[in-house]
Amino acid sequence: MTDLPERMTRYFEDYVPGFTVDCGSVSVSEAEIIAFAKEFDPQPFHVDPVGAADGPFGGLIASGWHTTSLTMRQLVDHWISPESSLGAAGVDEIRWPRPVRPGDTLHVRATVLEARRSNSKPDRGIIRSVAEVTNQDGDTVMRLTAINFVLARNPLS
Amino acid sequence: MTDLPERMTRYFEDYVPGFTVDCGSVSVSEAEIIAFAKEFDPQPFHVDPVGAADGPFGGLIASGWHTTSLTMRQLVDHWISPESSLGAAGVDEIRWPRPVRPGDTLHVRATVLEARRSNSKPDRGIIRSVAEVTNQDGDTVMRLTAINFVLARNPLS
Repeated sequence: MTDLPERMTRYFEDYVPGFTVDCGSVSVSEAEIIAFAKEFDPQPFHVDPVGAADGPFGGLIASGWHTTSLTMRQLVDHWISPESSLGAAGVDEIRWPRPVRPGDTLHVRATVLEARRSNSKPDRGIIRSVAEVTNQDGDTVMRLTAINFVLARNPLS
Repeated sequence: MTDLPERMTRYFEDYVPGFTVDCGSVSVSEAEIIAFAKEFDPQPFHVDPVGAADGPFGGLIASGWHTTSLTMRQLVDHWISPESSLGAAGVDEIRWPRPVRPGDTLHVRATVLEARRSNSKPDRGIIRSVAEVTNQDGDTVMRLTAINFVLARNPLS
C-alpha cells in the first residue's frame, strides 16, 4: 500500500455529489508504453514506433488500458481509502478523445456524481464518480465513469 | 505482433451484427495478480493474500483493470486485425459480476452488436461489440462493450 502523507480515510458519507479531489500527475515513457502493450495490447500503433509513424495516429500511442491502469493508480493513492473500499461493480463509460503519447504527463481529477445507500446492505453505499484525465497541454485524454461500493462510517440500523 | 495460424484479416464488412469469435483462454496466477496490482491498483484485496482472506472477497482477487488487459490481449490475438484496426473511441460499459481469483482460467468470446459506416470518413466504419469473459466454472466475470473504428475493405466512393 502507498502511505502518502495526505492520505485521509474516507467513508461513504464523505463522497457527496460534487466532492472533487486532485489525484496528482503521472508521466509515461515510450518504454513503458511499449512494455505494457507487448504484454496486453500488441497492436502496431502501441508497440512499433517506426510502423506507428505511418499509422493512424502518426506515432506511437499508449493502449487505452494502460491509461486506465495509470489512472487507477492515482485513484488508489488519492481518492480511494483502503479502509472503506469494497471494489467496483463496473464502469458506465470510458472515452479516449485524444491519444496518450510517449512523454505525456497525465493529470487525474476525481469527482462524485451520485451517492446512495445500499438498499440491501446497511453498512455501505454506492458511489458513481468520474475521473477526468488531462495531458500537459490541458487536453482531455480520458473520461471514465465508475461505480464503486464503499463502507459507511455509520451503518444504518 | 502475434502471428497465429488462424489469424484472418478482417475488415469493417466482416464485422456484421451477430458475428461472434471464440477468442481463446488465458490463465492468471497469484503472482501475476499481485505484480499487476502492485503497479496499478495496490488495494489490499489485490496485493495482500493474508489481509485479503479477511477482506470483502474472502481472498485475493485480480484488479478489474488486469481482467480488461488480459481480455484485450485475447481480442488482439483473435478478434482485431492489425491491418484494419484504427483504435477505440471508448467503452460503453464494463461489469465485473464476479471476482477473478488466482489460478482462474478466463475464456473470452467477442460478438458484434452494431456496425455502421462512418458519416464523415468513407474509408471506415464503427463497430460496437461485446466481450464476454467466463471462468472455468462458466461464471461470467466480465462483460465489456467497446466501440472501435475499423477500416473498410471497400471504401465508399
